[in-house]
Amino acid sequence: MSRTMLTGLQLIGTSFSGEGDHTFRAFDPVQQQWLPTEFREATAGEMDAALTLAAKAFPHYKKLPATRRAAFLQAIAAEIMALGDELIQVAAAESGLPVARLQGERDRTTGQLQLFADTITEGSWVNARINTQPDIRQLQIPIGVIGIFGASNFPLAFSVAGGDTTAALAAGCTVVFKAHPAHPHTSHLVATAIRKAALNTQMPEGVFSMLHGTSHETGQYLAAHPLLSAIAFTGSFRGGKALYETATRRTTPIPVYAEMGSVNPVFFLPGILQEKGAELAQQFLQSVTQGVGQFCTNPGMFITAKDDASTFVQALQQGIATAAGGYMLTPGILEAYTSGVEQLTRQGALVLGKAPANPHQGSPCLLQVSVAQALENPTLCHEVFGPSSLHIQATNMEELYLLAQRLEGQLTVTIHGTETELAAHAPLIDILREKAGRIIINGFPTGVAVNHAMVHGGPWPATTPAAGTSVGTAAIYRFCRPVCFQGFPASLLPPELQDSNPLGIWRLVDGHFSNT
Amino acid sequence: MSRTMLTGLQLIGTSFSGEGDHTFRAFDPVQQQWLPTEFREATAGEMDAALTLAAKAFPHYKKLPATRRAAFLQAIAAEIMALGDELIQVAAAESGLPVARLQGERDRTTGQLQLFADTITEGSWVNARINTQPDIRQLQIPIGVIGIFGASNFPLAFSVAGGDTTAALAAGCTVVFKAHPAHPHTSHLVATAIRKAALNTQMPEGVFSMLHGTSHETGQYLAAHPLLSAIAFTGSFRGGKALYETATRRTTPIPVYAEMGSVNPVFFLPGILQEKGAELAQQFLQSVTQGVGQFCTNPGMFITAKDDASTFVQALQQGIATAAGGYMLTPGILEAYTSGVEQLTRQGALVLGKAPANPHQGSPCLLQVSVAQALENPTLCHEVFGPSSLHIQATNMEELYLLAQRLEGQLTVTIHGTETELAAHAPLIDILREKAGRIIINGFPTGVAVNHAMVHGGPWPATTPAAGTSVGTAAIYRFCRPVCFQGFPASLLPPELQDSNPLGIWRLVDGHFSNT
Repeated sequence: MSRTMLTGLQLIGTSFSGEGDHTFRAFDPVQQQWLPTEFREATAGEMDAALTLAAKAFPHYKKLPATRRAAFLQAIAAEIMALGDELIQVAAAESGLPVARLQGERDRTTGQLQLFADTITEGSWVNARINTQPDIRQLQIPIGVIGIFGASNFPLAFSVAGGDTTAALAAGCTVVFKAHPAHPHTSHLVATAIRKAALNTQMPEGVFSMLHGTSHETGQYLAAHPLLSAIAFTGSFRGGKALYETATRRTTPIPVYAEMGSVNPVFFLPGILQEKGAELAQQFLQSVTQGVGQFCTNPGMFITAKDDASTFVQALQQGIATAAGGYMLTPGILEAYTSGVEQLTRQGALVLGKAPANPHQGSPCLLQVSVAQALENPTLCHEVFGPSSLHIQATNMEELYLLAQRLEGQLTVTIHGTETELAAHAPLIDILREKAGRIIINGFPTGVAVNHAMVHGGPWPATTPAAGTSVGTAAIYRFCRPVCFQGFPASLLPPELQDSNPLGIWRLVDGHFSNT
Repeated sequence: MSRTMLTGLQLIGTSFSGEGDHTFRAFDPVQQQWLPTEFREATAGEMDAALTLAAKAFPHYKKLPATRRAAFLQAIAAEIMALGDELIQVAAAESGLPVARLQGERDRTTGQLQLFADTITEGSWVNARINTQPDIRQLQIPIGVIGIFGASNFPLAFSVAGGDTTAALAAGCTVVFKAHPAHPHTSHLVATAIRKAALNTQMPEGVFSMLHGTSHETGQYLAAHPLLSAIAFTGSFRGGKALYETATRRTTPIPVYAEMGSVNPVFFLPGILQEKGAELAQQFLQSVTQGVGQFCTNPGMFITAKDDASTFVQALQQGIATAAGGYMLTPGILEAYTSGVEQLTRQGALVLGKAPANPHQGSPCLLQVSVAQALENPTLCHEVFGPSSLHIQATNMEELYLLAQRLEGQLTVTIHGTETELAAHAPLIDILREKAGRIIINGFPTGVAVNHAMVHGGPWPATTPAAGTSVGTAAIYRFCRPVCFQGFPASLLPPELQDSNPLGIWRLVDGHFSNT
């Protein structure tokens, strides 16, 4: 795939289409210039065509043996690697992210495809449940066409062939992907890789399509479309909520799995700050400023109690003064970050320290409020996407507990403490367990490992619904529902539910787990 | 518990409360008279009090070992049995249901409590997932206070101590139950049984409360209440949709698990009708008229192709003429049934046959339309709750397939066919698999067994969301969400996730199932 072949069109099944007149371009945040290639926005007719093909492909795709779907996922990974350096360079230009980071993200993406391929090949994920008397047999089945909205901040791992697409395809659903307008060329390259993989592994046409669009209307048109069965989204609260509202008000409502961000509070207990406050300050700043703070799990808030925090806060102030700023993903994100920090100060937050940065960069920043301020004005505790963190200073442990109790839903909550004080503050951990999908002790929230145990989700407003995760193999269940078969002759049962257990999967048979 | 102790009040924790002025009474549909006892409707203050107590009880209740929660469930079952004949008599008077049916329903209710007690005692249901590198450990946790709305048609098994309450309490959630106004005295008796069980097993006060109410406003007040974490409902589409709309438009939306009914289509393929049409006609009529058709899984629609159905239809016509009508649960349900049948005829349905019945009874009835009529006017295919069934006569298999494709979401879909024709019509089964939560071959949908494999749920408008089931042990997951613990010291991990696996549960450890 050479750059000259680039058309800037929609991918509808295996064909490219460019019916629309509206075009847009991506911006290079490092070079501070618009990139040359024009991309056409999808028309309603193109969206209909993609959804119609996806709906037609679904009954064929869902019936393929898991090994065929796994081969497709593996072929996608191979085709992504075959894009070579061009993918990394294009992604770097469109996102301003460093090459090494993007190479790591590519590994994460291909590793994720492989993990889901392994999971569906092994096969136990379908949660087969067999009741012998009466004969009723349950498993998870895919639900249809999934509309997926890519994130800006992971142009590979949370985008075209990212976690949502991988989980949906693994489940047996077909996908209509709405590319993020900040990295259309990157999206195009990955879409061509999926197209090649689909052709090479003889997938039904329409198993995957990709549409471009910059407007609110494109998203709304997709969310309201009768051929759609569910939505997956990673992005802002506003964007996720708009899709949720449309999807829940349809004649036939559909589920929306929206990951809408989080402030990811970090609680530092007094003992551990006395023990190693300076060291923790360096590690915490690293977590705040990493990737210019552009992670859903960036720690945007930290809480301390009593004056014991002074060494720690001083170390933070020293560190932040020399922290490195960086180019943010888009001018819009930089602007939102800058104005978000300004709004915090306008609402009474004290600036603890700020790193120098050129005006085109996001400048790391620490701010401070009291618990009283935070509780009085909950907007202080809303996410500011970027390398800032708000220190909430409690004057005692009661205040710290009160703040913990009042926290909104989060993707993560972190607690730092010595062994003794963690044991003493088990009730705090217990409170915080209700607030997030992942609870971290003596670590940092950035870095979301892809594995069987990860939960990347949490109570509203972090995600909707809290029962979903968008990272890790449990993400597959968002695109499934249980169905049971009663009185089926063996020949009509899926292999997962046949008496002989031909796939050798783990099943719950009359209440007992068994893989025979 | 003697009848003279009956107060007609709310149960708030362990106390009875009657602050309100609005009262109502239940109706005996067999004796055609209002029952004497007055019940007070809950006030906003009483609802607040119940929810506040439930929210206070939750952090204590969720931390009890599963064996304690199991003991509570078993104690509820024992206390229900201890109510003796009074419960059955009161339920019979309020519902018009026969004593034998209510005794069976009581067995179902206590059996359900025992099954969930066994499930949580065994413990593997928490879906523990452990990733050792990095150290991340996931399990399902309860989500908080569940608002449960009881159904009219199962005054025991889908009511106060029914499937939803049992699943929520088993998960570790606390419950505020809104009693169905058609059987307040039955509800009161069961609530007192739960109260006794909670006291005897030292449960935290507020683990269960019960409120009375007849108005739309009571339900809406509960659904909008900030202390509520989820809603479970069994009833009409209108009622479920109203709760869904309120719950999804809250500042903090919450999940609604609404079971809103279904027409439960039954497909009869030509070969099986030739083989044993007359026999199937008897069995089908039995399924239609059983319990005066007052089941969520009542077969309200059946489909045949070609003229081969004539013997079958004639047998149905003969059978329906002498089928037994019966008293329906409430005057409102009888009225809705009668007018539902009238509306079908007004919209062009032909009356195939009707059983004689006194004007206070629901009269079994068969109606008929063509596929063309059904597709033109989808309201013909909406549920009429009661002992009627609409014959949709296809003139050929293409029409039958077309109808199958256009079906709305259902709780169940049934197919009758010979071995040969089932094999030949595997594509039909494949289409129907997308339409329901339970697919039945050569059986009937009435009779929903409680076990590990049952799915009682299906795509909208049958339930919301389709991923839930309200019968069977998988119902517990509606009241849970996954959470993961990262970097936790062993002493702070719940036993389900400790290295030594002290509970001996099945866990997914680095992708491998193991119970050691």
